[in-house]
Amino acid sequence: MARLRIGVFDSGVGGLTVVRQLLRLGAEIVYLADTARVPYGNRATQTVRRYAFECVSYLVRQGVDLLVVACNTVSAVALDAVREAAGELPVAEVVTPAVAAALEQTQTGHIGVIGTRATIGSGVYERLLKERGARRVSSQACPLFVPLVEEGWCEHPVTELVAREYLQPLHGVDTLILGCTHYPLLLPVLARVLPETRFVDSGVALVHWLQRHGWVAADGARASTLELLLTDAPTPALEQMLQALRLGSVAVQQVRIAEHVLPVGA
Amino acid sequence: MARLRIGVFDSGVGGLTVVRQLLRLGAEIVYLADTARVPYGNRATQTVRRYAFECVSYLVRQGVDLLVVACNTVSAVALDAVREAAGELPVAEVVTPAVAAALEQTQTGHIGVIGTRATIGSGVYERLLKERGARRVSSQACPLFVPLVEEGWCEHPVTELVAREYLQPLHGVDTLILGCTHYPLLLPVLARVLPETRFVDSGVALVHWLQRHGWVAADGARASTLELLLTDAPTPALEQMLQALRLGSVAVQQVRIAEHVLPVGA
Repeated sequence: MARLRIGVFDSGVGGLTVVRQLLRLGAEIVYLADTARVPYGNRATQTVRRYAFECVSYLVRQGVDLLVVACNTVSAVALDAVREAAGELPVAEVVTPAVAAALEQTQTGHIGVIGTRATIGSGVYERLLKERGARRVSSQACPLFVPLVEEGWCEHPVTELVAREYLQPLHGVDTLILGCTHYPLLLPVLARVLPETRFVDSGVALVHWLQRHGWVAADGARASTLELLLTDAPTPALEQMLQALRLGSVAVQQVRIAEHVLPVGA
Repeated sequence: MARLRIGVFDSGVGGLTVVRQLLRLGAEIVYLADTARVPYGNRATQTVRRYAFECVSYLVRQGVDLLVVACNTVSAVALDAVREAAGELPVAEVVTPAVAAALEQTQTGHIGVIGTRATIGSGVYERLLKERGARRVSSQACPLFVPLVEEGWCEHPVTELVAREYLQPLHGVDTLILGCTHYPLLLPVLARVLPETRFVDSGVALVHWLQRHGWVAADGARASTLELLLTDAPTPALEQMLQALRLGSVAVQQVRIAEHVLPVGA
């Protein structure tokens, strides 16, 4: 049987935290990072939708069997544009699996979510969590976390100070969704700041969800492969991320995606 | 006499610190911020050149008399692409004026420069300063300063802690060039961290340079006007910047610039 070919899309290299989990599946992974236009998290919704449409259109042409949107911002505000570009191809995103995982883990029903301004501003996590039975949801945008990770300051005292300020309103949640692909790299700091809290890593939740719903089966006998496509030339943030995730040296290719207008109504 | 129409280009809204200075000239100012693709400071040179070419081509079509590149990253790594797009139009940038101002102000000849990764990595400030007589140049990339300003944390204790870490290697410089348009907003913090140092604000140096070289004459009798063109919809970073600069309410328009390939050899 041919190996499953999974196309993973993220605005930047943060989605490699999701890839780290997908590598357990014995699959061929093609990862597209829109590093020429990252970050998406502070941009307007219509712009994120246009970028997502262009990137996913490109990824579909790489002949993948399954599309994974690793980016929380895109999952939260641009899934319609992704589906428009994906056509018949199955699309998995990171919000639904994280919501399911949080609802399974919570004991008090008080769940927290952190993410970019766009993700939190969309209210998508809050709405889904409440619809599916959360008693209370607290959410907080954390715009400085991504630049801190990309600076390599995951364990820096500044990062802990920033985390204490951002997470102050979240004391009392028993489960916290890390609603941005960079955040799993901050787990040691986050766990110090909220020692009583369980954390939901989108990548872990996604792989669990894909397996449970029969979209993928782990093929432990085969090693996964990883192709990395970037819209910008490689920069220090990539090296930073590959090192932090111990992914070693990976074949990297810069690609030019077509820029075009999202069809009206998409 | 018709009022001078100045086109100002920056990757984002940081260049409004330069506009604040240009407003003293009694001119018509058209400011284009590429907020759909900001920040440029961590991107590869070829990508910054392409973006600069596209934006300046657009700005030229707005019928301006003079083009000001407020972005240090573009001034440092993409001036050739800007000139290609500008054709016959005079182009002023922010590196040359800041270098001139620093050399005038220094007493010890030991000058410092801070900026984005791309600006510092280009070595342009260092080369120009040394060619023109600086005894010693110390430079430091400060990638977290822009996100801190855009978060509105200009006076936050975290920002002071970050500044202490970044500026530690710069003790001993008597003059420091703020080589990024966001940095003048951090002046109170920077002055606490380096109390013996004089600071060069690109915007102030630029207006001084334009006047000294006869490119512009201040027309104190007329009020300046400001049009703000953005490639993304307005976001909180813009509000943040307008408030911090006390620019009040400004007419803002979202524009779509053509994306095309920079001519070979440009």
